[in-house]
Amino acid sequence: HILHDLSEGFPSPGPHLAYNRAGPRKQIYFKPGHVRAGIVTCGGLCPGMNTVIRELVVGLWELYGVREIFGVRAGYRGFYSSEPVELNPKSVHGWHRNGGTVLETSRGGFDLEKIVNAIENRGFNQVYIIGGDGTMRGMLEIFNEIKRRKLNIVVAGIPKTVDNDIGIIDKSFGFQTAVEMAQQAINAAHTEAESAVNGIGLVKLMGRSTGHIALHATLSSRDVDCCLIPENDFYLEGKGGLFEFLEKRLKDNGHAVVVVAEGAGQDIIPKSDQSHVAEKDESGNPVFLDVGGWLKSELKKWWDRDHPKELFAVKYIDPTYMIRAVPANATDNLYCTLLAHSAIHGAMAGYTGFVCGPINGNYAYIPVKEVARAKNPVNTRDHKWAWVRSITNQPDFSRG
Amino acid sequence: HILHDLSEGFPSPGPHLAYNRAGPRKQIYFKPGHVRAGIVTCGGLCPGMNTVIRELVVGLWELYGVREIFGVRAGYRGFYSSEPVELNPKSVHGWHRNGGTVLETSRGGFDLEKIVNAIENRGFNQVYIIGGDGTMRGMLEIFNEIKRRKLNIVVAGIPKTVDNDIGIIDKSFGFQTAVEMAQQAINAAHTEAESAVNGIGLVKLMGRSTGHIALHATLSSRDVDCCLIPENDFYLEGKGGLFEFLEKRLKDNGHAVVVVAEGAGQDIIPKSDQSHVAEKDESGNPVFLDVGGWLKSELKKWWDRDHPKELFAVKYIDPTYMIRAVPANATDNLYCTLLAHSAIHGAMAGYTGFVCGPINGNYAYIPVKEVARAKNPVNTRDHKWAWVRSITNQPDFSRG
Amino acid sequence: HILHDLSEGFPSPGPHLAYNRAGPRKQIYFKPGHVRAGIVTCGGLCPGMNTVIRELVVGLWELYGVREIFGVRAGYRGFYSSEPVELNPKSVHGWHRNGGTVLETSRGGFDLEKIVNAIENRGFNQVYIIGGDGTMRGMLEIFNEIKRRKLNIVVAGIPKTVDNDIGIIDKSFGFQTAVEMAQQAINAAHTEAESAVNGIGLVKLMGRSTGHIALHATLSSRDVDCCLIPENDFYLEGKGGLFEFLEKRLKDNGHAVVVVAEGAGQDIIPKSDQSHVAEKDESGNPVFLDVGGWLKSELKKWWDRDHPKELFAVKYIDPTYMIRAVPANATDNLYCTLLAHSAIHGAMAGYTGFVCGPINGNYAYIPVKEVARAKNPVNTRDHKWAWVRSITNQPDFSRG
Amino acid sequence: HILHDLSEGFPSPGPHLAYNRAGPRKQIYFKPGHVRAGIVTCGGLCPGMNTVIRELVVGLWELYGVREIFGVRAGYRGFYSSEPVELNPKSVHGWHRNGGTVLETSRGGFDLEKIVNAIENRGFNQVYIIGGDGTMRGMLEIFNEIKRRKLNIVVAGIPKTVDNDIGIIDKSFGFQTAVEMAQQAINAAHTEAESAVNGIGLVKLMGRSTGHIALHATLSSRDVDCCLIPENDFYLEGKGGLFEFLEKRLKDNGHAVVVVAEGAGQDIIPKSDQSHVAEKDESGNPVFLDVGGWLKSELKKWWDRDHPKELFAVKYIDPTYMIRAVPANATDNLYCTLLAHSAIHGAMAGYTGFVCGPINGNYAYIPVKEVARAKNPVNTRDHKWAWVRSITNQPDFSRG
Repeated sequence: HILHDLSEGFPSPGPHLAYNRAGPRKQIYFKPGHVRAGIVTCGGLCPGMNTVIRELVVGLWELYGVREIFGVRAGYRGFYSSEPVELNPKSVHGWHRNGGTVLETSRGGFDLEKIVNAIENRGFNQVYIIGGDGTMRGMLEIFNEIKRRKLNIVVAGIPKTVDNDIGIIDKSFGFQTAVEMAQQAINAAHTEAESAVNGIGLVKLMGRSTGHIALHATLSSRDVDCCLIPENDFYLEGKGGLFEFLEKRLKDNGHAVVVVAEGAGQDIIPKSDQSHVAEKDESGNPVFLDVGGWLKSELKKWWDRDHPKELFAVKYIDPTYMIRAVPANATDNLYCTLLAHSAIHGAMAGYTGFVCGPINGNYAYIPVKEVARAKNPVNTRDHKWAWVRSITNQPDFSRG
Repeated sequence: HILHDLSEGFPSPGPHLAYNRAGPRKQIYFKPGHVRAGIVTCGGLCPGMNTVIRELVVGLWELYGVREIFGVRAGYRGFYSSEPVELNPKSVHGWHRNGGTVLETSRGGFDLEKIVNAIENRGFNQVYIIGGDGTMRGMLEIFNEIKRRKLNIVVAGIPKTVDNDIGIIDKSFGFQTAVEMAQQAINAAHTEAESAVNGIGLVKLMGRSTGHIALHATLSSRDVDCCLIPENDFYLEGKGGLFEFLEKRLKDNGHAVVVVAEGAGQDIIPKSDQSHVAEKDESGNPVFLDVGGWLKSELKKWWDRDHPKELFAVKYIDPTYMIRAVPANATDNLYCTLLAHSAIHGAMAGYTGFVCGPINGNYAYIPVKEVARAKNPVNTRDHKWAWVRSITNQPDFSRG
Repeated sequence: HILHDLSEGFPSPGPHLAYNRAGPRKQIYFKPGHVRAGIVTCGGLCPGMNTVIRELVVGLWELYGVREIFGVRAGYRGFYSSEPVELNPKSVHGWHRNGGTVLETSRGGFDLEKIVNAIENRGFNQVYIIGGDGTMRGMLEIFNEIKRRKLNIVVAGIPKTVDNDIGIIDKSFGFQTAVEMAQQAINAAHTEAESAVNGIGLVKLMGRSTGHIALHATLSSRDVDCCLIPENDFYLEGKGGLFEFLEKRLKDNGHAVVVVAEGAGQDIIPKSDQSHVAEKDESGNPVFLDVGGWLKSELKKWWDRDHPKELFAVKYIDPTYMIRAVPANATDNLYCTLLAHSAIHGAMAGYTGFVCGPINGNYAYIPVKEVARAKNPVNTRDHKWAWVRSITNQPDFSRG
Repeated sequence: HILHDLSEGFPSPGPHLAYNRAGPRKQIYFKPGHVRAGIVTCGGLCPGMNTVIRELVVGLWELYGVREIFGVRAGYRGFYSSEPVELNPKSVHGWHRNGGTVLETSRGGFDLEKIVNAIENRGFNQVYIIGGDGTMRGMLEIFNEIKRRKLNIVVAGIPKTVDNDIGIIDKSFGFQTAVEMAQQAINAAHTEAESAVNGIGLVKLMGRSTGHIALHATLSSRDVDCCLIPENDFYLEGKGGLFEFLEKRLKDNGHAVVVVAEGAGQDIIPKSDQSHVAEKDESGNPVFLDVGGWLKSELKKWWDRDHPKELFAVKYIDPTYMIRAVPANATDNLYCTLLAHSAIHGAMAGYTGFVCGPINGNYAYIPVKEVARAKNPVNTRDHKWAWVRSITNQPDFSRG
């Protein structure tokens, strides 16, 4: 009896299938009474994390009769730095009603030796890892080390990224909830803009490398005049620039709403300008320059320069924490349940090195290697972006 | 120049494609200046109707430059019984924020001659019909009559069914919003049940022939003990019956929540019992027996008979109108936009006799004939229903 | 050392004050270490019950150092029929986020001997009773029996009535939340009415003897055409009747929204008509005739009789449980906290036989006798009702 | 016939009454057909502004038959710089559903001569001014100038301040809605704090000179560990300081939530630190130093200094625009209606120089002079602040 290593796509799921379909298997690898499962959450918050944890616990318990389930606290470092918490259906009962993660989370703390030692010492034979692309790369290392040590321990991943920036899968959990909540911020920005003379409402939405939230929030609203995303360079001055566009909008409508993704404009923000805020985060990622604050300030300068005697107002909203800290909505709650159950079925069948997710609507087991390197940029040549352009009439920013 | 009749699937979309993919075409059939479009909404309310209307108007206007767009009032009868309302982007501006349909809707009133005469007399050459399966069958008749008369008039359908009971397409608009809103009713039922001694919270959700809303609302919540749908016969008394199950739940937990779809149990409700409420609706459909009221009464009788001295409470909630009259949420708003744009692109390309909808995530033009006869029952043999069973532990009601 | 009996207003609070002002006293009667408090909730649900319980527990614990606090389960019968639950700040931590009452509630079960025996046997010396007017009358009996037995036990009441039908106090907790939630039902009714031809949206709101919720919900909305309350008799037929009014509204606007309080029209509903539903509730109160169902049916009959060929639709919404089962909003949460603290300060000072509540914005200790008999009808001669009339233009229903 | 100048409290309302009670008068001064009313909104946004405007229009029209009602655009400057918009019940129909002010608002632009000339030239004889304390001071000047010119023009004020910093009146409109919305931000901060290791959630709430929103939001929530307001100086370092308190909280609970009012700590924020952001607003008021940003930065410095090796996270939320740009909730909607009607009744009776508002629950006409100079600080010696202290256990920051 050995585990099925899915990390590179083996065993082949069949001639016409790219991936193994998720779901219960006829034969299970683990005797439920022998399972000792550990669950960990890493990285930033995302609506639905608690639902995933809850459903892993309830699913293992109810579907398979597993009785030893543990929560690892505060991210990867929790494996070696604190005692895991024992979990059961009763203790996790109402967790899905709360945003965030009851297990706590953190960035960094990835010490491969210590983590795998701890997994071994605590006797875990199923490890469920909930996290983003950095976390998935860590998971791959853990998987490889476990393989090297020839341990019979399943490593299963559940991709978490509110930005929806993980490729292959249709959509990440929490994303729909985030788009929903973003409407509140856009509505507020729109109201502020409409109630002022030459009012601009500026909303920064999550999305470091991809503009999915900004794009979807724009398409779901009807009040956004311009949507700036990392995949589409923009510039401020001159013909076809943002200022020219906004000037026209203010003249026509008296107000405008701009949505900007966190990662947009990184190449045109002067770094010196923000040296006092620049930092690296605990995962070692470069902290992004604050495009919202910069844009707000540039807009003011522009107006003061070009229209010194006219009223003007920029109202800047950064709703990040108010978006990502809410509980999952019904759609995401259901999605999180299906994800958790998929992971459980795979793990119980003895699959390892995989990540769960829906592909064209079907839940699948995807090799962690593929997920760890897949990107999911907005395709600015496809119909959704075309719709944004047609809805907003914003310039295409592709200068001569 | 003739219209492309898609009503039976012609022209073939290609060797590997079941349906024509929706989207803009290189060649358009209509000169925008010659288009005169009519939009009608029929049947019951569904979140997103106003968004669809709004986006049809804004899309025709902004994407193609169409300037003659009319709303037909109050369903099919509106074609011949009242003046259509002229619409433009300004007049429909904030409609998506409102539930219901600003154009009004009604059932019945389908008089083929009068409708096609009116379409001809008013000079419409694009007719957009938003409605459920009965409406789609009417659309097919209109389409055939127009063909018989050899008129160059496009007939395009946008399927509307909050119940999600139309087949082929992935999901109907408004469905996600309905599942979201249903959570409120389930939460209230759960609170009422928990706060009582032997409390049962009973929620009736929409779904005449299919239990999709009940199923999804159950999976999205974590508080439902039993989900009854039309696709799964149930019975009350005896071994494996509902009463036995609820008795156990009340004993174990002190309370229980039951979700029942509108169309469930129609075969076991005594008709005489409800003769005073039985009616036909204006479309000639038989009115469904009130499963909620009946169940509430049966539950009381059962308890009084079996446990005459113990406290008991059934709190019955019928949230139908509070669910279906809300505006679309962000997810459905986006979906409605894509639907409306798909319909416009098809109509402008001269396609007719088609209905728009997503199939495995891709928007397609589907022959109205297929949609008019497709059903979409919950598959009680698949994983979602299995999950309901595993979440609720409810009996499978398959006696003997 | 004896308790201060406030049940009849003694000790007099001073020449210019009607009631003792609530708040901490310099001298406290009880040594915190000797206090053994019991908390009970009776009657129907009301937003904020859990907040009151939570704040009683946290307040006794944090403000005074009391350590023996118990929840009595499921209303008055809980004193003698089940073990009380020990409570502390940790166990009640998140209760205010949930609607209903974690302690459970019930009607009836009032057995004076058993209750007072149980209070004595369990050693409670502070009893906090949360309930409506029936409950307050029971509290008066308990208080008198305790006095007769010469026991040093404080009995303090916190008036709970979502209907706001208790007199003297400004407003009861949960009422504002209920008015807030009622807007959802009115909005849905309005949308349904507007989207139909000759559509009437009918909403039944709580209020058996008083129409406060109906009145305030009408004034807070702008979509109600007619508000029917128990304090204002109405009739259907003839000049100045409801039908005449609605006929005019439908003619002018095409739709109308009617809000009716639960207790309205009881004198004109034929009793025989509803014999199959008439029941007594567990408290022995007569069950109210279902004014909503009756009105819906009468409206249909009227229209079929007078306008047999015209479209018509009545959409009837009874949102009762969806209103009363929600958690308190911020305003009511704050109010519940102040109520609970007022009760604690009074009880610790040795006051007994009192009820807490705000009078002209100041929290006071009110003799339970006064509260038990005070009514709080809507004054149909004052400005609020005049405003309803001016907003709705509804008839005054005072014939001949 | 002359107007009744209420600006200094004349005519005396009677021996026992401080103010004239609001409401309809038997005799009205204006013939409705002669009234020409102007309505203006000034200053920042506040939930309910549109409701007040709507109800002024509907009330004048429906209650008195006034037909010439105008909206002055974009604050005081709108009197002389743009054409007023004619308003009627139909045009303002759904305004109360939208946040902000459809009339637009602005700061500054107060040019007494131009304003009064414009009022005269446009023929307004009733001017309704909705604004905060600065606006009320401007209103007093306008009133005096009108008096000097001996014009028969009523000037009536409706105090608007989301901060609730106007004295005399019980509460300003929009305040309850703001407290309600603030819960969202506090919940997000709490979730972020709980989900992190040593997590601090920091929320800045509106309140320049007074901490009412912060105070009420703290009392309505149960998750705030510390509430900092302008009325209560605080300090960071040393015994009894904020850092010491937070250190203890983090040690005990692992997380903490801090609410800070906009105007708190202005005396301890180093001005040089924020020279790059300091500005004057258009009304000439000094812009407040950003206490939220400063505190976030100080907290980080403190932790890095004292606990360099331990995890720590500060999540800072500034929900200002998301709070103030929402529509009024039901409670505030009702309040706004009563305010508007009060103002109308007073103006129609020929009163001038007054401001409307509730005093101990009764609506009154208050001399504008009194309102213009009244402050409304939080009383840190009263029970509400004591409750904050008892709920939070925060230090009293009164050193030595």
